[in-house]
Amino acid sequence: MDIHKPRYIPMSRRRRIYEGKAKVLYEGPEPGTLIQHFKDDATAFNAKKHEVIEGKGVLNNRISEYVFQHLNDIGVPTHFIRRLNMREQLIREVEIIPLEVVVRNVAAGSLSTRLGIDEGTQLPRSIIEFYYKNDKLNDPMVSEEHITAFGWASPQEIDDIMALAIRVNDFLSGLFLGVGIRLVDFKMETGRLWENDVMRIVVADEISPDSCRLWDIKTNDKMDKDRFRRDMGGLVEAYTEVAKRLGIVAEGERPQGTGPVLVKG
Amino acid sequence: MDIHKPRYIPMSRRRRIYEGKAKVLYEGPEPGTLIQHFKDDATAFNAKKHEVIEGKGVLNNRISEYVFQHLNDIGVPTHFIRRLNMREQLIREVEIIPLEVVVRNVAAGSLSTRLGIDEGTQLPRSIIEFYYKNDKLNDPMVSEEHITAFGWASPQEIDDIMALAIRVNDFLSGLFLGVGIRLVDFKMETGRLWENDVMRIVVADEISPDSCRLWDIKTNDKMDKDRFRRDMGGLVEAYTEVAKRLGIVAEGERPQGTGPVLVKG
Repeated sequence: MDIHKPRYIPMSRRRRIYEGKAKVLYEGPEPGTLIQHFKDDATAFNAKKHEVIEGKGVLNNRISEYVFQHLNDIGVPTHFIRRLNMREQLIREVEIIPLEVVVRNVAAGSLSTRLGIDEGTQLPRSIIEFYYKNDKLNDPMVSEEHITAFGWASPQEIDDIMALAIRVNDFLSGLFLGVGIRLVDFKMETGRLWENDVMRIVVADEISPDSCRLWDIKTNDKMDKDRFRRDMGGLVEAYTEVAKRLGIVAEGERPQGTGPVLVKG
Repeated sequence: MDIHKPRYIPMSRRRRIYEGKAKVLYEGPEPGTLIQHFKDDATAFNAKKHEVIEGKGVLNNRISEYVFQHLNDIGVPTHFIRRLNMREQLIREVEIIPLEVVVRNVAAGSLSTRLGIDEGTQLPRSIIEFYYKNDKLNDPMVSEEHITAFGWASPQEIDDIMALAIRVNDFLSGLFLGVGIRLVDFKMETGRLWENDVMRIVVADEISPDSCRLWDIKTNDKMDKDRFRRDMGGLVEAYTEVAKRLGIVAEGERPQGTGPVLVKG
């Protein structure tokens, strides 16, 4: 039993809204809110590869809280309200735009493969890519032409999304640079948030080492989900190091919930 | 020996500038010109599949001449000057922009596969796609972000290319509709043409049943290179039918050079 459940709704009575690969969304305590629960599941290659990595969800909840809270603080609108416990955060319910927005600063992953550019090559400028969120189709890359033709977002919304993506990239690049980490690329999602009949686009989902490529500036060590994708091991240790450098967990501390569990009874 | 060689430069003395999968470019008779020679080679899946289909080059030379001449006539700038003989045309030398520009009106081919849309579905509006011309990388799809970041074309040039693509699509849609053919999609290339220090972008390469998807409006029969890609046979017959409907070859006529060849000596 999870001792960190929010007190106001017993876990058993909560309505599950959506279960994804690494997170579950539950009905929130008030209309227009949801509870975002971080699981320990790690998946890659469209869930063809799957493992449970104990402690990952706890770390991502903390790191994503840190990033989203600071984005809110600098005026980049997000769905984030506050963290509730080790694995959960309270968020605003938004209408998710079915696009994964990828911002790349350095060539890696599919960009390197598709365009034949060595991993680690600094790009001439940051590049924003869109992928259509659809597991059955393996999240195909799409361009503005597809997005507007099929009505996934309007031209104005695409402009807003790109402006948000650039701000998030600027903030994250600075944040990670400050703690000796190179932001190679990251993925974000966005959603439509209505407030008094006014709609605006906000950053949604999570931003964590699951959705970023983070390389140690000195050693080029990978501190992100590529450790799982490429069977390198040491994922929780790497995520913990990211959390430590950000000052989220103290030197020497292990965030609660990531250590070996003493099973009682 | 080809009896249709241009008279002013003996074939043997011509300088070959570039040999592609279906065409060869030779030095032209005057500076700034080239001779574009249509071969009978048919390739697909990045040349993994290859065949020589006798008469295809002759038909494509005629059909592409027809299309480019009419594009010139309606004020869409192209590299085309005039046809020289059965397999060759005189063109202006341009700096090819390394993008394949695909305009789609109906879902088919890779769009259907990638986005899970049944072949034959009318698209909500025409969609322009860009592919980076690079055989080694299998011509990957790219977006405006990649094109501008890597300097393959400027934002202004992309606008010009898209405007040209829309005009060509309008013209071709009308042309083929008039002869009972549905223009499903087509590929075009563009190049930079300098005239007195002024650069403009023009349509280049070829437009033929090799680079279009053409379906008979009544029967949905394919009259294009998919007959080769999908091992349906009857390619020369289909291309001949396109040429006949366009009035390029008369009913009952076989364009010269597509019949059996009497080998002398």
